[in-house]
Amino acid sequence: MMRNICMKVSYDGTNFNGFQTQPKDRTVQGEIERVLNILTKEDIVIHASGRTDAGVHARGQVFHFLTSSKIPVDRFAIALNTRLPQDIIILEAKEMPLEFHARHNAKRKTYRYSIDNGKFPDLFGRQYRLHVPVPLNTQAMREALSYVVGTHDFTSFTSVRSVKPHHVRTIYEAKLIEEGQFIHIELTGNGFTYNMVRIITGTLLKIGHNKIKPEAMRNILTGCDRSLAGPTAQAVGLMLMDVSYGEELSAN
Amino acid sequence: MMRNICMKVSYDGTNFNGFQTQPKDRTVQGEIERVLNILTKEDIVIHASGRTDAGVHARGQVFHFLTSSKIPVDRFAIALNTRLPQDIIILEAKEMPLEFHARHNAKRKTYRYSIDNGKFPDLFGRQYRLHVPVPLNTQAMREALSYVVGTHDFTSFTSVRSVKPHHVRTIYEAKLIEEGQFIHIELTGNGFTYNMVRIITGTLLKIGHNKIKPEAMRNILTGCDRSLAGPTAQAVGLMLMDVSYGEELSAN
Repeated sequence: MMRNICMKVSYDGTNFNGFQTQPKDRTVQGEIERVLNILTKEDIVIHASGRTDAGVHARGQVFHFLTSSKIPVDRFAIALNTRLPQDIIILEAKEMPLEFHARHNAKRKTYRYSIDNGKFPDLFGRQYRLHVPVPLNTQAMREALSYVVGTHDFTSFTSVRSVKPHHVRTIYEAKLIEEGQFIHIELTGNGFTYNMVRIITGTLLKIGHNKIKPEAMRNILTGCDRSLAGPTAQAVGLMLMDVSYGEELSAN
Repeated sequence: MMRNICMKVSYDGTNFNGFQTQPKDRTVQGEIERVLNILTKEDIVIHASGRTDAGVHARGQVFHFLTSSKIPVDRFAIALNTRLPQDIIILEAKEMPLEFHARHNAKRKTYRYSIDNGKFPDLFGRQYRLHVPVPLNTQAMREALSYVVGTHDFTSFTSVRSVKPHHVRTIYEAKLIEEGQFIHIELTGNGFTYNMVRIITGTLLKIGHNKIKPEAMRNILTGCDRSLAGPTAQAVGLMLMDVSYGEELSAN
C-alpha cells in the first residue's frame, strides 16, 4: 500500500550546493534520497516546501515522499539520522493523507536573516551570520521593514532570474530582533519569491548604513523594478525557520 | 623601548591541535606568533593564561608578549585580525606594565561545558556542544555540582598525566544553566587542574543518568583518586569563557 511520509528536516547549508539535486554536487535532497533509497530499496523522490539556495540553512524545512515501505513512521527519523551526514537531521516524521503535498499545501513560511553587528564577529556560529562591523541604524531598518507587511508585488525584491508568472506575495509579519550584537530580520509570509529575503535584507543594510532613507522602501516596492532595490545579501545569514500547514494537514 | 602587550583572544578550537605550539600541527599560539612575527619583524613568544587542549574553544583567552615594536596598541588588534585565519579573533589589546604575566597574574578563570540534551541535536553550533540524547536529571547534577564549590584537593578530577606538585584549587562559583534543550555547566575558580572541568562534567553526566547518586560527589572529591570519578567528557563542549586579573592589572 502506498504511504505518504512527511518529514521536518534541519540542515546546515554551509557545505551543500543548495537543496535541490544536482548532477555532480553535494545537495540536501541528494543526501536524503540516497539514504531513503538504502532504507526502502525503492527509488524515492522527495518534494520539499521549496528549494533553498547554496549556503542557506534550515531549522524546519518540510518535505514529503511516497513509499510502499512498511517501516513504522516513528522509526523512520532515527533510521535516517543514523545514516545521514552530521549536517542534516530529521526532526520529525509523520504519515499524511496521500493528497498532501509539502509545497502545494504550505500556508506560511518564516525566514530569518541574521547579522553580526559587532566590531569583531562572534566566532561561535559565524557560519550562520553575516558580519557587518559598522554600527547599523536599526531604528531606520525597523521603519523600512514595516512597509513590506501586507500584500504587494515584490518584483523589486525578486531576482531577475525568477521564472514565476507573478511576484505578488503576502507578508504577515516582519520583525527586527536585536539580541546583543546580533540583528535578526524575520519575515513570515504565504510565500517568497526568488532571493526575496536576501534582497530585502540587502536593501535594509543600505538603510541601516544611512545611505537611503527608510521611506524609500515604499517607492522601491511600488516601482516593481529590481534595479531600485539594494544588493542581494550573502546566503550565509539566511535560515528557513519554519513551514506551516493548515490545521487539517499540520506537519508541526 | 620594550613594551608588554596584553591581548584578549577568541578562538574556535575545532580545527586546532590545542593552544600551545607543536612542531608540526596547527595551533592557536603558532598562528598568532606567525602573524605577530610578520607585523613586528621580531621573534615573538606569547604567554597565555594557560593552555587549552585540542578541540577546546575560547571566548576570552588572555596572553601577553614583549616587543620593541612601535605599533600603537589600538592598531594591534585590527592589524592582527586582517591577517589571522577566520577561527581566531583578537578582541582587545592593551599595554601593560612590564611585570605583568598572563598566567602568573590570573586571578579567576571561568570555564563552561555545554551539553545538547535534545533527542536530536541542534545543528547550529553542534561544534561547541556535546550531544547527550537521553534526558538528564539536572536536579541531581545541580546538587552534585554544589559539592565542588570551595577549596579542595581536586586529584580525583585531575588527569593522571598532570605534572603539577598539588591539585588544591578554589572554586568560587559552580552553576548549571538550562537554556532550552541545552545544559551549561559553568565553573569559576582561581585555577583548574589538567582536564578538571571535563572530568567533573563526565562525573556529572553519570549522575545525570542516575548511575550514581549526587552525594557520591563528596566521596569522590575526598577520596583523591582519579579512578573514583567519571570519564573525561569530550573536548568539543568545553569553552574558556573568561580570565580575570586584579584591579591593578585588569585585562578586561
